[in-house]
Amino acid sequence: MPEAATAPAARATIGDSEFDRDTALTRRAPGIYDIDLSAGWTIISAVNGGYLLAVLGRALADALPHADPFTVSAHYLTASQPGPAVVRTDVVRTGRTLSTGQASLFQYDDEGREVERIRVLASYGDLDTLPDDVRTTARPPAIPPLEQCFGSEDGPAPVPGSSAITDRLMLKLDPSTLGWALGQPSGKGEMRAWFGLADGRDPDPFSLLLAVDALPPTAFEIGLKGWVPTVELTVHVRCRPAPGPLRVSITTRNLAGGFLEEDAEVWDSADRLVAQSRQLARARLG
Amino acid sequence: MPEAATAPAARATIGDSEFDRDTALTRRAPGIYDIDLSAGWTIISAVNGGYLLAVLGRALADALPHADPFTVSAHYLTASQPGPAVVRTDVVRTGRTLSTGQASLFQYDDEGREVERIRVLASYGDLDTLPDDVRTTARPPAIPPLEQCFGSEDGPAPVPGSSAITDRLMLKLDPSTLGWALGQPSGKGEMRAWFGLADGRDPDPFSLLLAVDALPPTAFEIGLKGWVPTVELTVHVRCRPAPGPLRVSITTRNLAGGFLEEDAEVWDSADRLVAQSRQLARARLG
Repeated sequence: MPEAATAPAARATIGDSEFDRDTALTRRAPGIYDIDLSAGWTIISAVNGGYLLAVLGRALADALPHADPFTVSAHYLTASQPGPAVVRTDVVRTGRTLSTGQASLFQYDDEGREVERIRVLASYGDLDTLPDDVRTTARPPAIPPLEQCFGSEDGPAPVPGSSAITDRLMLKLDPSTLGWALGQPSGKGEMRAWFGLADGRDPDPFSLLLAVDALPPTAFEIGLKGWVPTVELTVHVRCRPAPGPLRVSITTRNLAGGFLEEDAEVWDSADRLVAQSRQLARARLG
Repeated sequence: MPEAATAPAARATIGDSEFDRDTALTRRAPGIYDIDLSAGWTIISAVNGGYLLAVLGRALADALPHADPFTVSAHYLTASQPGPAVVRTDVVRTGRTLSTGQASLFQYDDEGREVERIRVLASYGDLDTLPDDVRTTARPPAIPPLEQCFGSEDGPAPVPGSSAITDRLMLKLDPSTLGWALGQPSGKGEMRAWFGLADGRDPDPFSLLLAVDALPPTAFEIGLKGWVPTVELTVHVRCRPAPGPLRVSITTRNLAGGFLEEDAEVWDSADRLVAQSRQLARARLG
């Protein structure tokens, strides 16, 4: 009997997974990278903002002398589509423990002119050199065990549109933040989920950039419908994540004047707060 | 008797105040501005990061078709000193409701070469066109009345170094977050204060950029001492502030690996959440 028939499905590894292949760039010239944005990370027809952040994050990891994103600030300009794109990076400053860079992702209009999609400023370092000290009052999100949470495979699509990205994620939503999917939003701006990559690849700093923008909008639980486009998103990576599923908690406290913030926390299997993010997004009031 | 002797001290107004004069730029060429960074906004010898953000914010307000900062992301590269500086701006995208720009502040080394101090990406709009809708679960900070809070004029300098900036601010700290000044830090990463400009000028979006980085570091209440340099700071301006003093609340939940976040909220006299910010800063563990 061939070994493959009895062996469990092989888990993808960091560096050899869907996510790594779909965020890999080709260096055209120093600091300039080509990529074909995958249609596998779309929501409805738009490319997911966290996937784009991971693409830009990998370009800067190549361009800068430090490999790990510590803080990445992204301003979203126009909606990206699957297909060819170019990333242009600029080294702003290199230091002993931190380096700062800038990167822009461009696509092409009908006449082949570059159209800027997203611009980021980011500071990179080496997560493995940080001391182990932790003094925290933050607590992991209160979320039921993974097997009591719900994904798109568990029933009538809780994630609307059932877009391509849902096939690439292991996303299990806390039932207490799923009221919107049953037409009964809680009114609280909270969303919680277990998060991983569907092929079993363990988390790393780049998949954290994806994780912070992968859940349904908190606006759904406030009773809003429709698209909630990101204006700006900043991520802090605080620690290299341990193997295993992540827990992601997103909170919106203030919806005002047609804008809302989404604050995300990402916790790893070792109960460490591995990433924090905040985004400003537009809300369609109705 | 001359009128000035009996009239109450004139309150400065928006556009005619210390803060406005010290953040005013001279346009050298389209998108390029000169400024003499005032020694009036220093802490020890370094220029305050919020003052710098206001300078960059005003440059972008001139360079962009929209006047109000909605979200400003700043990466701090090298420490600024009082004296000449140049701000170079770049219009990234102009839209109907939002425009995005980039700005860098440079100073000069001994040979007159430009050294970049800080770079920002920012999206601007018009706060006065936003709808009045507010759905919020955020509550104003629990802080005693202004007259029960303490400033540098109320006793042995609670703000260490008694730097120039303290003369330009009306900063009254909540006594329950002042333990550090008495050698008894609470261990909680909280700092709360009433905030205004000493000359009575009312708040506007640019003074909000100052307000989010004007309190003593939360690290002092965690028991750390010394400098807590900002790596990255992002501000969201959510509403044009009403006249009168502001309340500022800053929270640090996670100090780990030599870095900490500072989350600030700014509330106006009408009980509106007018700004939110988060910064990543380095902590000196000891």
